[in-house]
Amino acid sequence: MLNFEFQNPTRIVFGKDTVSSLDKLVPADARVLILYGGQSAERTGTLAEVRAALGGRTCFEFGGIEPNPTFETLTKAVALARAERVDFLLAVGGGSVIDGTKFVAAAACFEGDPWQILESLGGAVQNALPLGVVLTLSATGSEMNAGAVVTRKETHTKAFFSSPWVFPQFSILDPTKTYTLPARQLANGVVDAFVHVVEQYLTYPVDARVQDRLAEGLLQTLIEIGPRVVHEPADYDSRANLMWTAAMALNGLIAAGVPQDWATHLIGHELTALHGIDHAQTLAIVLPPMLRLRRESKRAKLLQYAERVWQLTTGSEDERIDQAIRKTQDFFEQLGVKTHLSAYGVAPEAVDALVQALETHGMVRLGEHGDVTPDLSRKVYEAAL
Amino acid sequence: MLNFEFQNPTRIVFGKDTVSSLDKLVPADARVLILYGGQSAERTGTLAEVRAALGGRTCFEFGGIEPNPTFETLTKAVALARAERVDFLLAVGGGSVIDGTKFVAAAACFEGDPWQILESLGGAVQNALPLGVVLTLSATGSEMNAGAVVTRKETHTKAFFSSPWVFPQFSILDPTKTYTLPARQLANGVVDAFVHVVEQYLTYPVDARVQDRLAEGLLQTLIEIGPRVVHEPADYDSRANLMWTAAMALNGLIAAGVPQDWATHLIGHELTALHGIDHAQTLAIVLPPMLRLRRESKRAKLLQYAERVWQLTTGSEDERIDQAIRKTQDFFEQLGVKTHLSAYGVAPEAVDALVQALETHGMVRLGEHGDVTPDLSRKVYEAAL
Repeated sequence: MLNFEFQNPTRIVFGKDTVSSLDKLVPADARVLILYGGQSAERTGTLAEVRAALGGRTCFEFGGIEPNPTFETLTKAVALARAERVDFLLAVGGGSVIDGTKFVAAAACFEGDPWQILESLGGAVQNALPLGVVLTLSATGSEMNAGAVVTRKETHTKAFFSSPWVFPQFSILDPTKTYTLPARQLANGVVDAFVHVVEQYLTYPVDARVQDRLAEGLLQTLIEIGPRVVHEPADYDSRANLMWTAAMALNGLIAAGVPQDWATHLIGHELTALHGIDHAQTLAIVLPPMLRLRRESKRAKLLQYAERVWQLTTGSEDERIDQAIRKTQDFFEQLGVKTHLSAYGVAPEAVDALVQALETHGMVRLGEHGDVTPDLSRKVYEAAL
Repeated sequence: MLNFEFQNPTRIVFGKDTVSSLDKLVPADARVLILYGGQSAERTGTLAEVRAALGGRTCFEFGGIEPNPTFETLTKAVALARAERVDFLLAVGGGSVIDGTKFVAAAACFEGDPWQILESLGGAVQNALPLGVVLTLSATGSEMNAGAVVTRKETHTKAFFSSPWVFPQFSILDPTKTYTLPARQLANGVVDAFVHVVEQYLTYPVDARVQDRLAEGLLQTLIEIGPRVVHEPADYDSRANLMWTAAMALNGLIAAGVPQDWATHLIGHELTALHGIDHAQTLAIVLPPMLRLRRESKRAKLLQYAERVWQLTTGSEDERIDQAIRKTQDFFEQLGVKTHLSAYGVAPEAVDALVQALETHGMVRLGEHGDVTPDLSRKVYEAAL
């Protein structure tokens, strides 16, 4: 096991009818800025429920945070937070709203150009407004970690930052709030959580047994509940299990003491930036060829994955690895998430620009061994066509 | 899944050569009270290492915290902390030292009779001194939770309290610090962690898939590494896996959203109080008959345990359950922890007093269904003879 530090102070309030606990979680004298995305928060009644729970506090609202939240939009929220001397932020939404709120929390307290928050990967953050979360979409795990991804529209750049200052103070996870989501968002959520786990698990063995067993348990749970979540009418236990799995997938526990990859995410980011493909869809596209092309350096963990997650114990090593990757890809497709670039209208001629974008963004030595070069990334894009 | 709240702010610093990080973890101007148990902390050099890492700070020391730390001893530490106006406590040891330090932390700030801390189960705690941990023995998980058990010698009472005020601010987990432990303490640690998991897992199903998979992963890990930890020369990875497993076994994660039992612990406590049997030994004695006697109400989870933890898939339901309990008991015995009262010199005539003690302490409706009555507890003690 590698040395590690782990700390995660976020308070999780999980279950039915928990939005009303906002009243005890948000300071009674707070000036609150409620941040949300599109119209669904209003339409489903969640915003009304939030407003009622916060009754008596001075509240402001900022809607319109887009999927892959942009620096340009968030800068307007920062201006509002400052102008109204807001002292508490409440994100009502999924990963994009939460990520955006984390950026606003840090930027509202930041002197100088707030893009430095992202350029420094968060190292420049010395303070932030406190924030809380009411989660309405299970996917990114942002509700229980200190990271965020922000897109700069003018340069097509997806940038990441992380800082202990932006851990949510609390996150309210009420599975019933996900009942009205469309199948596409549900399927994306399952794939997103799945690939988060894979990025922290499918590397090389370091005898970290609990982390491995937990990662495998998260993957098995997603395989068990994913099709039901996407294709059947909403039921509480499936949604509850998805909600807790997605949070546990990226709260630092399965990353503790093990190597991490993240090449699939970083290669996928360019597909979102240049072609507008949903984040989770890019993961479903990139992961299968990525695993096939890196089978030698990932061999031991791929075999463990095949055996423990997919119960594949017969055939040669390579047959088991091939089967495990095939089953992974089939799982994504069964959820309705296409795994080929052609399905999203991306033609072979697009590959040059994608590889160029990776180089421009410095994404030239990715993965747990730093051996995912632009050449290998090109092969991944080509194999994904 | 049941509704739940989860929060655990303790910072874990895990790995080789991490004791030196005390210098950044303890405030530079702190007046520190170092608390420890017997002579081993001095003999192994850990105390010297701690003193060196704290260099420059004003430090006081309080040794002699016994296994099953007593109210009487801890009261002296409280007096020292107050007299020297200490503002940071550092526990150097295992569960008993950490539990004792938590009590000192709360009692040093408590007005009135500090036994109220335990009588209120911690509810009366409104403040505590900050505390940190250097762990030298993996077992109780106290390094990553807010609970503590304190014994009142004069009344033979083991009492529990819990308060968010006594979460350790940090815990340093260096597996090499456990290299010098005797086999008995190592074996006790494996059993203690194992039964902690069982108390939160072997109840009835509520479709909490991640919690179940994590619990099963912790049990499997203990089964894999336990014999090696106890019977073979110290190796880093076994000790590291035990250390992280024991912490994860009682940090609140596997308890989130599921029913809990704890009858084995509470029935075992009287064996420690009246016969001085090690805590983990009492668990190894009580658990097997407890599971046999409650097989009907635990049937579904016992079958899941048999299949996923012990890979028992053939035979009738009752055969699988019997085999799983038998394998559990054999596992304890293989570690060198005896599972019958006779091995500890406790005769049949002792049972009356044990049941009487349970009644005196109000332990009359235990377990996840509240159906572990004194009559059933008597049967457990008798079956354990």
